[in-house]
Amino acid sequence: MAKKVGVILSGCGVFDGSEIHEAVLTLLYLDRAGVETVCMAPDIPQAQVINHLTQEEMGESRNVLVESARIARGEIKALADVKAEELDGLFMPGGFGAAKNLSEFAFKGAEGAVNPDVKRILEEMLAAGKPVGACCIAPATVGMALKEHMPQVTVGNDVTVASALTSLGVKHETCGVGDITVDRKNKIVTTPAYMLGPGIKDIAVGIEKAVKELVAMM
Amino acid sequence: MAKKVGVILSGCGVFDGSEIHEAVLTLLYLDRAGVETVCMAPDIPQAQVINHLTQEEMGESRNVLVESARIARGEIKALADVKAEELDGLFMPGGFGAAKNLSEFAFKGAEGAVNPDVKRILEEMLAAGKPVGACCIAPATVGMALKEHMPQVTVGNDVTVASALTSLGVKHETCGVGDITVDRKNKIVTTPAYMLGPGIKDIAVGIEKAVKELVAMM
Repeated sequence: MAKKVGVILSGCGVFDGSEIHEAVLTLLYLDRAGVETVCMAPDIPQAQVINHLTQEEMGESRNVLVESARIARGEIKALADVKAEELDGLFMPGGFGAAKNLSEFAFKGAEGAVNPDVKRILEEMLAAGKPVGACCIAPATVGMALKEHMPQVTVGNDVTVASALTSLGVKHETCGVGDITVDRKNKIVTTPAYMLGPGIKDIAVGIEKAVKELVAMM
Repeated sequence: MAKKVGVILSGCGVFDGSEIHEAVLTLLYLDRAGVETVCMAPDIPQAQVINHLTQEEMGESRNVLVESARIARGEIKALADVKAEELDGLFMPGGFGAAKNLSEFAFKGAEGAVNPDVKRILEEMLAAGKPVGACCIAPATVGMALKEHMPQVTVGNDVTVASALTSLGVKHETCGVGDITVDRKNKIVTTPAYMLGPGIKDIAVGIEKAVKELVAMM
């Protein structure tokens, strides 16, 4: 039986959902590692719908699960229906969706709420000793959800985000785009991805390392 | 000066736009080849908007350029504004958008129309001796647009699509997902991608080869 890694998506597009390159590279490296991926997303309205050409808000409503299904080619589950006991690991790609739909970080900073199902599955993974990975801005949401465990994460070298996290008791490590930060105690691996970029070939290096470390910790 | 390759997108999602994995892998391998990518899409309404969770049509309208901008992280041009003289090569990822928005192949078969700007830029590339790549179902649209040149392409082993194309004078070569078909005379390289799949690691092999061959022909 192949091991299973859940991938939490947050919509489809960097400004209001999952960062598409990060999500696809995560799926690529998990597939190459021989792991079965279980895409999942909360069945909730998106906080915003952004026109990615103009970066302005569009006057419409979209659903996080339905739009995430675009990245997953239709093979996706509602996050509320998935328990950590079905999984061997979990990964959360970035994009503003991770900080707008999975938590309120983009709107309210580190004091904002975390989506209850995101918090639940992260707590379940940690309690079961199963590893969690995240990239780009998603480690902020992971840090908010797991602050009681004083996790160590990276969001690259963004001082504002890092200090917001450290105010919660989260430890932040500065990290290059081709590197990873590993919290051995909590089994959390993070990489900066498009928090640093600049290009897709650059973020691919760190995401590949993060996925390999995640699989190694399973 | 880095060479430039145009990437024609057709929306964002396999059932009504560009296949996201194919588009992202194209961008990855072009970036790794040291090539500058110029994403572009027609500024037209999508033929359909499909709910990727249920595969049913949604009662809304979306724009091909605006949705393609999600894959391009906002860095995208209207196809009508781009001429082949600005480019060294061109690549068209697949997904139903390539056969619904860039041509009418999905609705009317090989007798359907090709978007005028898609046909124009493909003809310009061929006339300038500049190479064109495509994957998945996109080679059907390339074949329709360039049928007067009797191009050779692959869509994997799909007999229905292949015979529709050969009825136009297009030559079809059966090809595995990890391989490419090269039309040396017209400088066209194609690979089956998700016409065969099954997984992202499988299509990555053929897309990497296709991009390398495209760059080699520039």
